[in-house]
Amino acid sequence: MENAHNGHHLSGQCVSVLDTVDDALYVIGGKWKLRIIIALSDGRKRFNELQRSIKGISARVLSNELKDLELNGFVKRIVDENSALSSVAYERTDYANTLRSVIGSLHEWGEMHRKKIMQP
Amino acid sequence: MENAHNGHHLSGQCVSVLDTVDDALYVIGGKWKLRIIIALSDGRKRFNELQRSIKGISARVLSNELKDLELNGFVKRIVDENSALSSVAYERTDYANTLRSVIGSLHEWGEMHRKKIMQP
Repeated sequence: MENAHNGHHLSGQCVSVLDTVDDALYVIGGKWKLRIIIALSDGRKRFNELQRSIKGISARVLSNELKDLELNGFVKRIVDENSALSSVAYERTDYANTLRSVIGSLHEWGEMHRKKIMQP
Repeated sequence: MENAHNGHHLSGQCVSVLDTVDDALYVIGGKWKLRIIIALSDGRKRFNELQRSIKGISARVLSNELKDLELNGFVKRIVDENSALSSVAYERTDYANTLRSVIGSLHEWGEMHRKKIMQP
């Protein structure tokens, strides 16, 4: 990374950072995807539970985002056939755990930024 | 981070990850902001240069995003008074460098994800 962010060359490596970050933002960017993945970090949740834990998301948007996340392999939809009520829940896949360091660095940066903003 | 992503508790720490990531995404989320910051990683650029280096951005959107980035302290607008032509350029501030690890982890994850997608 060091080289990619310094110097006055627009080298292959620099372009590649733009490209790979583009790829990442394409899949996990937007307002809700990382929030949903974080909200599922403490285990399986039913749709309503999940909606309650993410402030401001509508049922329609959550439903669409969950389909996207399922398609991209971050979330599993789980139907409990044994339940008397129809019971659908969502949980994170192992692949979603690969986002740990992305979420970690956003968390650390967000914390640092909040402190900076709150300075008198 | 480890505790925040495991276990079945919705503890203060878990909520805090959501909150701080929210803060981060609020400031640097969206389609363009990180891309602009990365495009300025190899030094000062004039508006047109900057626009050319970011695929698909319109002049109006770039102009608005630059104002936001300036307000949030990531970008400096530099006017060269000595130039015969009116010469305005943009460069990253030191504060933008605090995003290095966020960009680094998105880069690494994007690279990993691209390889996974391209698997036969």
